[in-house]
Amino acid sequence: MKLFSYWRSTTSFRVRIALNLKGFDYEIVPVDLVAGAQRAPEYAAINPGCAVPTLMLDDGTCLTQSLAIIDYLEALRPAPALLPAEPLARARTLAVAHQVALDIHPVNNLRVIGRLRQMGHEQGEIIDWMHHWMHEGFTACQQMIRADTPFCFGDTPDLADICLTAQMYNARRWGLELAPFARIVEIEQACLALPAFAAAHPDSQPDAR
Amino acid sequence: MKLFSYWRSTTSFRVRIALNLKGFDYEIVPVDLVAGAQRAPEYAAINPGCAVPTLMLDDGTCLTQSLAIIDYLEALRPAPALLPAEPLARARTLAVAHQVALDIHPVNNLRVIGRLRQMGHEQGEIIDWMHHWMHEGFTACQQMIRADTPFCFGDTPDLADICLTAQMYNARRWGLELAPFARIVEIEQACLALPAFAAAHPDSQPDAR
Repeated sequence: MKLFSYWRSTTSFRVRIALNLKGFDYEIVPVDLVAGAQRAPEYAAINPGCAVPTLMLDDGTCLTQSLAIIDYLEALRPAPALLPAEPLARARTLAVAHQVALDIHPVNNLRVIGRLRQMGHEQGEIIDWMHHWMHEGFTACQQMIRADTPFCFGDTPDLADICLTAQMYNARRWGLELAPFARIVEIEQACLALPAFAAAHPDSQPDAR
Repeated sequence: MKLFSYWRSTTSFRVRIALNLKGFDYEIVPVDLVAGAQRAPEYAAINPGCAVPTLMLDDGTCLTQSLAIIDYLEALRPAPALLPAEPLARARTLAVAHQVALDIHPVNNLRVIGRLRQMGHEQGEIIDWMHHWMHEGFTACQQMIRADTPFCFGDTPDLADICLTAQMYNARRWGLELAPFARIVEIEQACLALPAFAAAHPDSQPDAR
């Protein structure tokens, strides 16, 4: 397998964690989002959304969208499970993952920031924008997770932990005030102490600068 | 079951379609997003993200996030299936659904528009913003779906059809130029011809104005 990935992309970070937790062998192919490599015709041909990540299987089949890729990995190698089997528990984990993946990340990603800059917004306004959505989303997440477990919902990390830990990288990078989010920081630290998360971290990537 | 829903919310529209396709009995409880009802303390207590939809089960359990709710409904009543069983086909359907649910809708929803207005943007700029993300996302989706089937991937509607049809309501509302998206319009029309989709349409809701 090849993972087309950008070191700082939190959606790439999510898939790297899932691949590592499940013990897949894969090769990282860096896509330089800042240089616009995601818009090159040969890349757009494998990822029509012109985004990372893309997972290329050994037969050349390409999968896009981080959570769809993780769903595929879960089917391919069910252990360790990233979602509980019980439907209600599964819906709760998915809701936290989606609170990050639908309500925080898409409004805060590189293409949206680029658009705001084009519309004349200065760095201070961009920072306010980033903080606003992360603060709102993390506030919701913290009410949706358990308070008494090492990870969001138990003794092992699941998809909610993956999405939160990846988003926390962005929160730190943009200087979000983390004091209100002690529970999320605690989960992030528990996750990053695991080799699968540490090896997936942006700073451990071949294209890290 | 009770579905806390807003007529024009495309995430509520998605869940209404899924409930109807699977034949669940449910009661609509309108939440007036324009009046800010989603931020009332009693609503925030059941949906920490202060958003619609929320599905309240008969025992009072509340589920949030439209795609997590649909995943739960799929587990509860597997037929008709909204996702294929085969992992690769499932990943392809999910990728289209997520192209809409992660890359279009979150950047175009009411809270983001409200924020842009607060930042001083006029209606014309807001319309450009809406069109930009819908055009980009639909362009990707159209390359990701089949060209030769009644629905996105076959003879019956799946999660990709649900997300696209709901998003098309917003596209029409904001006057997106639809000529480049003939295949998506064709799918939307096939979907809206089905009673489950028609009954879920914003204009059929008790809170429609």
